[in-house]
Amino acid sequence: MSDIEERLEFLDELSAAAREITLPLFRSGVAAENKAESGYDPVTEADIEAERELRRLIRARFPDDSIEGEELPDHVGSNAYSWTLDPIDGTRGFVAGVPVWSTLIALSQHGEPVLGMIDLPALNIRAVGDISGEPVAHLIHDNGETERLQVRTIDTLSEARLGCTQPFGMFGPGELAAYKIIQSGVAFSRLGLDAFGYVLLAQGRMDLMIEGGMKPCDVRALMPVIIGAGGVITDWHGGNPKDGPRLVACGSPALMDELYTYLGRAMT
Amino acid sequence: MSDIEERLEFLDELSAAAREITLPLFRSGVAAENKAESGYDPVTEADIEAERELRRLIRARFPDDSIEGEELPDHVGSNAYSWTLDPIDGTRGFVAGVPVWSTLIALSQHGEPVLGMIDLPALNIRAVGDISGEPVAHLIHDNGETERLQVRTIDTLSEARLGCTQPFGMFGPGELAAYKIIQSGVAFSRLGLDAFGYVLLAQGRMDLMIEGGMKPCDVRALMPVIIGAGGVITDWHGGNPKDGPRLVACGSPALMDELYTYLGRAMT
Repeated sequence: MSDIEERLEFLDELSAAAREITLPLFRSGVAAENKAESGYDPVTEADIEAERELRRLIRARFPDDSIEGEELPDHVGSNAYSWTLDPIDGTRGFVAGVPVWSTLIALSQHGEPVLGMIDLPALNIRAVGDISGEPVAHLIHDNGETERLQVRTIDTLSEARLGCTQPFGMFGPGELAAYKIIQSGVAFSRLGLDAFGYVLLAQGRMDLMIEGGMKPCDVRALMPVIIGAGGVITDWHGGNPKDGPRLVACGSPALMDELYTYLGRAMT
Repeated sequence: MSDIEERLEFLDELSAAAREITLPLFRSGVAAENKAESGYDPVTEADIEAERELRRLIRARFPDDSIEGEELPDHVGSNAYSWTLDPIDGTRGFVAGVPVWSTLIALSQHGEPVLGMIDLPALNIRAVGDISGEPVAHLIHDNGETERLQVRTIDTLSEARLGCTQPFGMFGPGELAAYKIIQSGVAFSRLGLDAFGYVLLAQGRMDLMIEGGMKPCDVRALMPVIIGAGGVITDWHGGNPKDGPRLVACGSPALMDELYTYLGRAMT
């Protein structure tokens, strides 16, 4: 088994460990309690606890790998592999009871993402992409059923379905203007999807995701899933999006070229 | 068993019948096919087929009740009861693979909603409200588990969680301005929820829903769920919202009064 195959298999163990911490809290609704009143934020606590547990498991199994996460300081290893962790992506949805929050885990090799997992515990599914060789991505249901992920190729903006988590919140004024031009031309847009939107894109049910304000730990796990499903994912200029903050993903390279002309203007 | 109790029990049969038509289509992803190419829209077909089946069941069991639905002409009965049906509310989410679409069924007595069901087949839950007597609402899980729905009472806008399906799409310019004033003052907002947002409000996980462009078949099933859970649901002036198009729902009467001052201005 190759280094990467070993780590791909290890994703099962990591996602199971994170779920043990996150899922009971989501279901119980404790997350809905008001942190202003109690001075205690159970979601941030669970996020940190899950990240600590993931780090412990990774260091026990692959002690030379590097680790970066949203909540805790980076661990610098001694080989080519680094993990990027976000135990609860979409904390607002998590708090509000919306089941589209996810656990994001990416493995990079020499700084480039090669494996990505979007685990959706409340929806009983996870998407896993592997672009270390021939790109491939799968959707794995909790019952073991597995399907190959494949984007659909819609080349015309007016037929495309656009997703974005929060246009008012994640864009600056110039970015919002570019987004609205594109949004006014699509078949329809769906909001509030968080990382689940990228799974729907990889499934061929959405065509286009445009987001801003993203951190490396938000982005890296998405890349192998989208590329593995045959899609394109870049920053707003067509460059490597791995460090954020702006992200565009699409099933069609031709449509992507059209989008850059709108998105590029947002920066001037 | 009273007339209304009989009809309350009958909701089980109706939701099961609708699910048989809607759920396989949602899961198969056939809904993702492009109707422009095929000239055939499977979602509209399923919506009509499910409405036809619900009407058939209602007419067989309660032949004197009236029926109105989104897709087919009204049936005028001869007693005090009328059904309002929307087999697939949130068709865009349905098409895109987002599991928050629902089947909405309301029963009105002398024109006022008394029973409401929000069935969420892809999330394995449904919310049912009964305000024919002492208002009450329950969340029923597919495994039979049932919990009483109860809003939480957040009186301060800055602590409230706001939901809205699509601010860009469902509001006119004056409405959008009022929405944005409120949105800028809340703890956070979540978009893209469709009728599921009202279930989260009834659960005490969201505090506030503000929407526009609603039809009677979108609104009536929501009212008994929100009122049964102890919440308030009105149009933007505090009037009866049963015919739409503008809707505001909240767990706190005090916060609602504050909202009317913003929402009222949108109309001038």
